[in-house]
Amino acid sequence: MEIQELLEQVKAGTLSIEEAKQYLRKEPFEELGYAKLDTHRKLRTGHAEVIYCEGKSTEHFLEIFTHLYRENGEVFGTRASKEQYLAAKERFPQTVYDETSRIIRIEKNDKPHMGKIVVCSAGTADIFVAEEAALTAEYFGNYVERIYDIGVCGIHRMLANLDAIQSANCIVAVAGMEGALASVLGGLVDKPVIAVPTSVGYGASFHGVSALLTMINSCANGVAVVNIDNGYGAGYMASQINRLVGEQHE
Amino acid sequence: MEIQELLEQVKAGTLSIEEAKQYLRKEPFEELGYAKLDTHRKLRTGHAEVIYCEGKSTEHFLEIFTHLYRENGEVFGTRASKEQYLAAKERFPQTVYDETSRIIRIEKNDKPHMGKIVVCSAGTADIFVAEEAALTAEYFGNYVERIYDIGVCGIHRMLANLDAIQSANCIVAVAGMEGALASVLGGLVDKPVIAVPTSVGYGASFHGVSALLTMINSCANGVAVVNIDNGYGAGYMASQINRLVGEQHE
Amino acid sequence: MEIQELLEQVKAGTLSIEEAKQYLRKEPFEELGYAKLDTHRKLRTGHAEVIYCEGKSTEHFLEIFTHLYRENGEVFGTRASKEQYLAAKERFPQTVYDETSRIIRIEKNDKPHMGKIVVCSAGTADIFVAEEAALTAEYFGNYVERIYDIGVCGIHRMLANLDAIQSANCIVAVAGMEGALASVLGGLVDKPVIAVPTSVGYGASFHGVSALLTMINSCANGVAVVNIDNGYGAGYMASQINRLVGEQHE
Amino acid sequence: MEIQELLEQVKAGTLSIEEAKQYLRKEPFEELGYAKLDTHRKLRTGHAEVIYCEGKSTEHFLEIFTHLYRENGEVFGTRASKEQYLAAKERFPQTVYDETSRIIRIEKNDKPHMGKIVVCSAGTADIFVAEEAALTAEYFGNYVERIYDIGVCGIHRMLANLDAIQSANCIVAVAGMEGALASVLGGLVDKPVIAVPTSVGYGASFHGVSALLTMINSCANGVAVVNIDNGYGAGYMASQINRLVGEQHE
Amino acid sequence: MEIQELLEQVKAGTLSIEEAKQYLRKEPFEELGYAKLDTHRKLRTGHAEVIYCEGKSTEHFLEIFTHLYRENGEVFGTRASKEQYLAAKERFPQTVYDETSRIIRIEKNDKPHMGKIVVCSAGTADIFVAEEAALTAEYFGNYVERIYDIGVCGIHRMLANLDAIQSANCIVAVAGMEGALASVLGGLVDKPVIAVPTSVGYGASFHGVSALLTMINSCANGVAVVNIDNGYGAGYMASQINRLVGEQHE
Amino acid sequence: MEIQELLEQVKAGTLSIEEAKQYLRKEPFEELGYAKLDTHRKLRTGHAEVIYCEGKSTEHFLEIFTHLYRENGEVFGTRASKEQYLAAKERFPQTVYDETSRIIRIEKNDKPHMGKIVVCSAGTADIFVAEEAALTAEYFGNYVERIYDIGVCGIHRMLANLDAIQSANCIVAVAGMEGALASVLGGLVDKPVIAVPTSVGYGASFHGVSALLTMINSCANGVAVVNIDNGYGAGYMASQINRLVGEQHE
Amino acid sequence: MEIQELLEQVKAGTLSIEEAKQYLRKEPFEELGYAKLDTHRKLRTGHAEVIYCEGKSTEHFLEIFTHLYRENGEVFGTRASKEQYLAAKERFPQTVYDETSRIIRIEKNDKPHMGKIVVCSAGTADIFVAEEAALTAEYFGNYVERIYDIGVCGIHRMLANLDAIQSANCIVAVAGMEGALASVLGGLVDKPVIAVPTSVGYGASFHGVSALLTMINSCANGVAVVNIDNGYGAGYMASQINRLVGEQHE
Amino acid sequence: MEIQELLEQVKAGTLSIEEAKQYLRKEPFEELGYAKLDTHRKLRTGHAEVIYCEGKSTEHFLEIFTHLYRENGEVFGTRASKEQYLAAKERFPQTVYDETSRIIRIEKNDKPHMGKIVVCSAGTADIFVAEEAALTAEYFGNYVERIYDIGVCGIHRMLANLDAIQSANCIVAVAGMEGALASVLGGLVDKPVIAVPTSVGYGASFHGVSALLTMINSCANGVAVVNIDNGYGAGYMASQINRLVGEQHE
Repeated sequence: MEIQELLEQVKAGTLSIEEAKQYLRKEPFEELGYAKLDTHRKLRTGHAEVIYCEGKSTEHFLEIFTHLYRENGEVFGTRASKEQYLAAKERFPQTVYDETSRIIRIEKNDKPHMGKIVVCSAGTADIFVAEEAALTAEYFGNYVERIYDIGVCGIHRMLANLDAIQSANCIVAVAGMEGALASVLGGLVDKPVIAVPTSVGYGASFHGVSALLTMINSCANGVAVVNIDNGYGAGYMASQINRLVGEQHE
Repeated sequence: MEIQELLEQVKAGTLSIEEAKQYLRKEPFEELGYAKLDTHRKLRTGHAEVIYCEGKSTEHFLEIFTHLYRENGEVFGTRASKEQYLAAKERFPQTVYDETSRIIRIEKNDKPHMGKIVVCSAGTADIFVAEEAALTAEYFGNYVERIYDIGVCGIHRMLANLDAIQSANCIVAVAGMEGALASVLGGLVDKPVIAVPTSVGYGASFHGVSALLTMINSCANGVAVVNIDNGYGAGYMASQINRLVGEQHE
Repeated sequence: MEIQELLEQVKAGTLSIEEAKQYLRKEPFEELGYAKLDTHRKLRTGHAEVIYCEGKSTEHFLEIFTHLYRENGEVFGTRASKEQYLAAKERFPQTVYDETSRIIRIEKNDKPHMGKIVVCSAGTADIFVAEEAALTAEYFGNYVERIYDIGVCGIHRMLANLDAIQSANCIVAVAGMEGALASVLGGLVDKPVIAVPTSVGYGASFHGVSALLTMINSCANGVAVVNIDNGYGAGYMASQINRLVGEQHE
Repeated sequence: MEIQELLEQVKAGTLSIEEAKQYLRKEPFEELGYAKLDTHRKLRTGHAEVIYCEGKSTEHFLEIFTHLYRENGEVFGTRASKEQYLAAKERFPQTVYDETSRIIRIEKNDKPHMGKIVVCSAGTADIFVAEEAALTAEYFGNYVERIYDIGVCGIHRMLANLDAIQSANCIVAVAGMEGALASVLGGLVDKPVIAVPTSVGYGASFHGVSALLTMINSCANGVAVVNIDNGYGAGYMASQINRLVGEQHE
Repeated sequence: MEIQELLEQVKAGTLSIEEAKQYLRKEPFEELGYAKLDTHRKLRTGHAEVIYCEGKSTEHFLEIFTHLYRENGEVFGTRASKEQYLAAKERFPQTVYDETSRIIRIEKNDKPHMGKIVVCSAGTADIFVAEEAALTAEYFGNYVERIYDIGVCGIHRMLANLDAIQSANCIVAVAGMEGALASVLGGLVDKPVIAVPTSVGYGASFHGVSALLTMINSCANGVAVVNIDNGYGAGYMASQINRLVGEQHE
Repeated sequence: MEIQELLEQVKAGTLSIEEAKQYLRKEPFEELGYAKLDTHRKLRTGHAEVIYCEGKSTEHFLEIFTHLYRENGEVFGTRASKEQYLAAKERFPQTVYDETSRIIRIEKNDKPHMGKIVVCSAGTADIFVAEEAALTAEYFGNYVERIYDIGVCGIHRMLANLDAIQSANCIVAVAGMEGALASVLGGLVDKPVIAVPTSVGYGASFHGVSALLTMINSCANGVAVVNIDNGYGAGYMASQINRLVGEQHE
Repeated sequence: MEIQELLEQVKAGTLSIEEAKQYLRKEPFEELGYAKLDTHRKLRTGHAEVIYCEGKSTEHFLEIFTHLYRENGEVFGTRASKEQYLAAKERFPQTVYDETSRIIRIEKNDKPHMGKIVVCSAGTADIFVAEEAALTAEYFGNYVERIYDIGVCGIHRMLANLDAIQSANCIVAVAGMEGALASVLGGLVDKPVIAVPTSVGYGASFHGVSALLTMINSCANGVAVVNIDNGYGAGYMASQINRLVGEQHE
Repeated sequence: MEIQELLEQVKAGTLSIEEAKQYLRKEPFEELGYAKLDTHRKLRTGHAEVIYCEGKSTEHFLEIFTHLYRENGEVFGTRASKEQYLAAKERFPQTVYDETSRIIRIEKNDKPHMGKIVVCSAGTADIFVAEEAALTAEYFGNYVERIYDIGVCGIHRMLANLDAIQSANCIVAVAGMEGALASVLGGLVDKPVIAVPTSVGYGASFHGVSALLTMINSCANGVAVVNIDNGYGAGYMASQINRLVGEQHE
């Protein structure tokens, strides 16, 4: 341990105070930085980094996939291509690929799933994002209930599922086009709603901008928004919120 | 009457066919133009032009106001200032001014109001636009029911008024911020919904752009949109639609 | 029938009032929701849901297509691919596909077409959207007249068709580029104009944004706008308006 | 109680099953709607509605303020003007007004404050929004720690406060200009970060759009965003998250 | 001739004045419209319509191409594909295709070219638009001088060609990226400058928006702008201006 | 004259060729620059610079105004304030100020006005820009005819003035809101149309952007666009075009 | 000095190694942070922080102004109001205020000014930003030459000043409207050009966006851009660049 | 040499002063232009023009490549395709192609590399731009250190490399998504930071606009920005800055 050594050498007189000062001025960043935060991440989440597969060459992807799997006994990647999946499957036949969400993973079987997150989608076309959120939250150890195709142009479908929605610790609301789902949900529940605009739509939906603006301007309290199509980000944040319920209050 | 005269002169031989042709090539536009359409407008709607008061000097406004009132026995202006109102009131004490919608008018008392238009607003802040729509539709002889403050973040308020909404021939949906009202209404009724985005909101509402995009991207069928804060336009179009019900089918 | 049973059991004393209250608090949403509105839709329009084909897998598409056709004896889909058409044709040889509008359908032969809707296009390049509007309105039982290629840069072409346009209950105005068609039409008719901006154009047309803004800012009264390229939405709303003429006034 | 009565009358035979069915089809919305959700809101949060003061006339404001204070023994308003404050103070001398955040309130003294929320601001100019978030969260019964002026162009200031930040259940990150605070914080903590872009800046900050985009595109996990300058929304959502810690896990 | 006949019948008494009035109210539009303007176009320009080839099927294109060629002895099309060219060439071996500008044409050999238009481009990448402008202007009978690659980041290249530029009746300035060419030229000549922004560039050039804004905001007098990549429009307008020089002053 | 002197000294041998080369490498810019172009401007236009008054202090304005008047015997300023006018009037009682266009000027009485420019406006609200164009063109010696309030929502008004419009050498089309005037005019005339979008409108007109886009995307040939509200720029360019008619063809 | 003390105590045995480790893990950030960087800043620039005066209350401003002046013997503030100036002047009569740039300062008289920075402006309206850049650079000890009103619509004015411009180590190019100055300069010099878009202009200049895009898309090499109207930022960066010339090469 | 000859002829009397004046009025531009600046460029940078390969045909590319290589003994191209590379390699086997940055080059081996530029990237996905910057700067004779993947969501990685970063004369900061890297770096160094937004990201990153806005709004001093993905531009400007250190101070 470096600081330990340094201080011991100062105490023993084998390192001058000037030299120690010079060293300390730079070192703590490095020490804090890489080492401390990395350990921190493992300690608090119980799993390693997630792979953002898009744009990675198959070899590069496979190398990281293998490395993370060997280290953690499980591995999770978003926006994977079919080609990446086939490469992974060849090496690890237990690899699972979800074509809808494009998530690739090897997941431990015995993982407990705590609390409850509800992932809602406005339409069936939004499910590719909703599944990214749901599978992410499940991978991070949360219990997830999916309620899809409850868009606001048929409000009765949402109302029919109100009990299930209201029982969650956190709701993920996934919607494209006009993206009004989050506002309506926000007015019906007393738990945080993570809104995910999707690129579903055409014309003046501007690849998700319309839904994004709707959600950011929500008149309902308790709605916050992540990037367009960012199911992973919503699943991750929902996990952070849901897991708070299981922690001790300080 | 000019065309009458021309034809009579042709018949009488006092105008050559060549001269008549020359004349007809240009004239009908003018004749059609100003005269014909104006008369047409009166015949079909029963009232004259409406005054867009904004930006008009008080003298200019008063002159038009007086002219139209004298011609039609009633007069209607949008976006009037208080100063314009005081000037009109001095001359015509029966002038009525609505501070919320900034509509100024002298209206005949015995006008029948046909059919039914429902004007809904999402919030109380949108009422200045909703009232412009409602008063416009009333001025054009429609029966109007107002249902305000039924925004989607409290969906129960809308549901509680569903019967009234569903009984209209046409619904005007006025909303700012995320503007989701039109979509939800569109899914609950089988009549045309005229959506009016308002400039109500702040930040990423961009003075009504967010609501406009939401409404244009509505996943519900039967929703069409007018300009931001354009209550007059919505009231006018709703009137056109509502009055179809009373007309004969060809 | 569920509510019937519940009330009968309450009357018979086999269900306590407390239990019935508990049940009613949740159920009506579900009952209202799915069941009621669906039936309602059938009752009022005489046809089932329409398929938005884009992005659906051929199998998924074919399943819905078959289901809806079997239930209603006719079926209608927008934005269908040629591959989807071939799959449908193989199973139902009577399937009709319009390459211009990409509409796929099996339509009953003896359907009456009421009232009159005029669908106008500014240019020939806009016809793919205009046909989507026209075929939609026809499928919903309206009589449709098409008047294409009457853009404002040759205003005489529009004026030459004025009689036909003025005889409609509702006009659909389809235009890309600068999209001025709707404004000019709005000034020439006294019926509602549904404006459809199209993505036709290049450069600063921004895939339809220019036409959308033009139409939203129309100086003519009685113009409302749907999404870029949304011929279906315009045809649907025009149908709602046109059908009002045939309904009884309450 | 209405449903109780209805069922009793069905049981007693004074109301036919048909009549009861007719009634139930409509009523539950109203019952659910207004009544149920309102009660629900009180039960779960312990306080009534908040007043959005902007744009309300002083009389209107004062009426609502008085009504809510009388009902709940405390009252809270955002974006209040000085004039509104003076009117409230005249009637209720215990009214408190914070000039920075423009929050007006009468707050119970003995309210417990649970958990821990940290509200950070990038600069001193963002404090007007940060204080809106902090005072909101405090009003809703949360313990709040403020850490201001730790913007990313002096990253050492943030690092110096890392211990305090990492001890929160939820972090509110308030920043204008380039809005990078949320990303950097998101990478340093394992708790949800609610990002609030502010309108602070000039030129290409576009009144907060730059900060909004930065936050929405955050490369850090666990960041979600509310509207520009929406301190209230962030405080409300942080409260929802923080309070989860104190609730029972189902 | 219709009006002739009508008037003769009025004169002869075989058509009543009432009937003639009814007829005249509608007819002149049609007569004016199609017939008059078409003839007008031919009379004033000496050539028929131009084909905008993009998006037209090869058969459709070929039909129009053949029709116009047969009628006028020459034909001109913009944005033609190679496939369209090959189809035209097979039927008319004298067809000429310019790969850079994608202009297809059969042009009369003995056409005089009057006045002088200078077409400038900022870079070599802008030449595809500049050639569209130049060939268009030549087809319409103007003498054109091309001066390419004189962008403002090497201002000496423009200055070296100043004499040639200043001798034109009209200058077409074609530029992408920052599009500053038009402003600099506008300050150096006393003739109208038609500015054409191009889609050349990347990143924040936004496919020509940057150049468009630059040109619209030109601090130089005498600069007006056409759409992004609209070489044809610039060539057409330059032709209108240049040809004024040869006309008689009224 | 400097170059004269330099060459004379070289000839006389009082300046070495090396020194002369050194001098010539730099000087011509200066010589060309300030001096030559200024003279050029006077020679070709017959009048001096125009003052853009906005943002100039009254003293600064008055100094320039006086200087230009003394040099040229006339002077012309755009966007002048009333305060600037009063200052100018005190010194030069013959100063004329037009409140609508905010143009200030002292103009020679005996100036001939050549050719013909027609300035059209869509509405009465656009006249402040149309007058800037008209007065500018008149100041530069052109004959101008004004045709106002002929917007496309009443197309008959434009048609009624067609003869006058078609007789111009150049048309200036001034319109706000949806800005369709230029396209319709462009289809009816064979002379260049300079389109001026105005900031007239509200909501999605975005202070003139809607009209600007409409005009830039005009489907009519022969339309080019200047900046929003830039009446001066349109008047200047129209003058350049109109004056070509009076020049000799080279 | 804290680290010194800590190490001395470790050496002396009065602080245990464990305690020292605990302290060092947190402290260095603080120590590095506030203290070290501040000292660092002083060491390298020879002057303290600059005050961004906008939005600061007069008392708050005066406190900071006084504090910084007392510490450094000079003080510099941007975007100061006249009221702030009067307050400062009352306390420190030697305070200087520049109305154009709104810079307030007390500056040491004997400061050397090294190297050479040229600050150019396109028009006289841009000088308020150019002066902010120039005065900033001078305050930071650079020699500055101002060359104003050399916009590209009169390119000769720029060429006439080429020698002066080419002799600088760094050029600041300040321009609004179309902002082409930076590109033209970038093509004429071989030194870095810092481009500052200004909000000068109207209509489609969008308060500086047009100039910003022009500059970002510059076809010339060696141009980088700061925020709209950010003269201070440009002056600061130019200072960093210019001062490199005086430093030792490693 | 032309001017030499001209002056000699004037001296010898074989050219009249009038003729010489006529000649000088035009010629110097050409002479200055092409010749002088070209020579200048060579003299000051030691290398010829760089090829922007995108959009160039392979033959055209190869011709320029060969020409520049033969003239300078080295050659450098950006955005080259693999096909262009293969063509170049066939002729010049020593051609080097970097697939990441798409830079093609033949570089002299013995080139000295002066000073120090640090090129940082936020993520691994940004390296394609960072390498373009780094290779450009190296080609222009600068010593470059690469520090990649130090994005702000893991701030410790940046802090760990602070010494290396702080030792540069100029820093290039390359980042997509939220682009906060430049601001954080700007606060940690006292040297100019050239910020390069990249198109890396999705959704509301708008192909680099989000990062561009972040960087333009940087709260840190000493940050200026180039176009999205413009690694070449950043490398060029960094070279200009770094090379100042080695120049003499005037």
